Amino acid sequence: MAERVKALAAVHVPAVDLHFHPQCFRAAGHFAGTDAERTAAFVEIANDSTFDALWFGRGGYGSGRIAEAALDQLTGAARAKTYLGYSDAGVLLGGLYARGFQSVVHGPMPADINRDGGEAAVKRALSYLSTGAAETLEPSVAGSGKVAAFNLMTFSQLIGAPFQPDLSGHVLMLEEVSEYMYRIDRSLFHITSNPVVRRVAGIRLGRCSAIPDNDPDFDQDEVEIVQHWCGKAGIPYLGRADIGHDADNKIVPFGGLRSA
Amino acid sequence: MAERVKALAAVHVPAVDLHFHPQCFRAAGHFAGTDAERTAAFVEIANDSTFDALWFGRGGYGSGRIAEAALDQLTGAARAKTYLGYSDAGVLLGGLYARGFQSVVHGPMPADINRDGGEAAVKRALSYLSTGAAETLEPSVAGSGKVAAFNLMTFSQLIGAPFQPDLSGHVLMLEEVSEYMYRIDRSLFHITSNPVVRRVAGIRLGRCSAIPDNDPDFDQDEVEIVQHWCGKAGIPYLGRADIGHDADNKIVPFGGLRSA
Repeated sequence: MAERVKALAAVHVPAVDLHFHPQCFRAAGHFAGTDAERTAAFVEIANDSTFDALWFGRGGYGSGRIAEAALDQLTGAARAKTYLGYSDAGVLLGGLYARGFQSVVHGPMPADINRDGGEAAVKRALSYLSTGAAETLEPSVAGSGKVAAFNLMTFSQLIGAPFQPDLSGHVLMLEEVSEYMYRIDRSLFHITSNPVVRRVAGIRLGRCSAIPDNDPDFDQDEVEIVQHWCGKAGIPYLGRADIGHDADNKIVPFGGLRSA
Repeated sequence: MAERVKALAAVHVPAVDLHFHPQCFRAAGHFAGTDAERTAAFVEIANDSTFDALWFGRGGYGSGRIAEAALDQLTGAARAKTYLGYSDAGVLLGGLYARGFQSVVHGPMPADINRDGGEAAVKRALSYLSTGAAETLEPSVAGSGKVAAFNLMTFSQLIGAPFQPDLSGHVLMLEEVSEYMYRIDRSLFHITSNPVVRRVAGIRLGRCSAIPDNDPDFDQDEVEIVQHWCGKAGIPYLGRADIGHDADNKIVPFGGLRSA
């Protein structure tokens, strides 16, 4: 996978020097290396000013295991860097943004090359990292002021933790994959009940894909659900967002265009 | 199911007059009635001083949908009542306890009669409701001071919401069912990252049952996981609790014996 992404980068963004940390290829049970190995790798790249960006390799649960230790070790060099990823990486993206990091970005990762049409997603990420090209951005970003994007369940698990960023005045985009409709509903109950979240400028719903069948049928789809919870919480529902666990997943720079 | 529970109560606690609200038999998609019907039923029984207790009929997702509206309508009569249930009902138990209700109790529900040996669970709940019998209680309750108990995922979804009770100084018991080990880990990451939760006197782990296979194996079991997160958070891990999604689920009166 790494070789395919490197080959793609060599053609598509020849000026970019792409480095895969050896930790990416390690395995320890559920994780790509022990917590200590993964923390050390993250901190090593984040604090190395010779790298312009830290690109998360893939999602799947694991960021929470290292978030507190990793964030506590970051230095000034880490603040000058761009962080790009999504899904479970949202724990670290949220924690970085909560600590005032300026270039925190939701978008495709190297592992997306394995999706149908996934080369387009990886090329989009590489283009963004290379030039910040406007056509890589989620379409509503340009007109939205401050923005942020998360996987719904990942964001739910940040609520009330020190990794939860204050998104007052932001448009919050949320996407989900492989969760039952009742769990999408439950996560939105949780998120929209939080007083800090209630200060967002609005919520946009990304794609909710690969939803297992609810038995009995949930009767409401994901748009009706988010409208229900936004209505109860007094949060404007602003429509769909062009993000999701798929090859079309567009780029969302936290804070909006100022960080692009 | 209701008839079987009523027949059991007639023999086991003949002085108890058990009433099943008609809402229990309604259906609306995923739920036992619409949100309005479920809210109205809860409020009607809670505010009726001729009932000594409100016994949740069953778990399954749904309490979050009615929690804010239902809690806002409760009157003084509701404060004199005992509330008994577990699993998803923890949203309302948490919200009631957060509002200072004095008799909030984690324990079996009528639907437990369908479990293997479930009559024992239902009889335990009826005995508790009838006499507060000491033998119905989770064994550590007597020596623990303040206590509370929740389903792990349900409690996770309360964090940072107005339904999260302040459990400072409490022994917090947590149980889980049918969740992947990585999700048990993720929920404990979430819960133990919360500054209010970090003020608990300790955590006891109830049974974690019907855990689907993790692929690859998670390498840690639920005890190692809770020890890991308690260690990071500076929360004492106090051992196991005799609660779970099973017939042996013992009674935990929130706040400890003063409310029994």
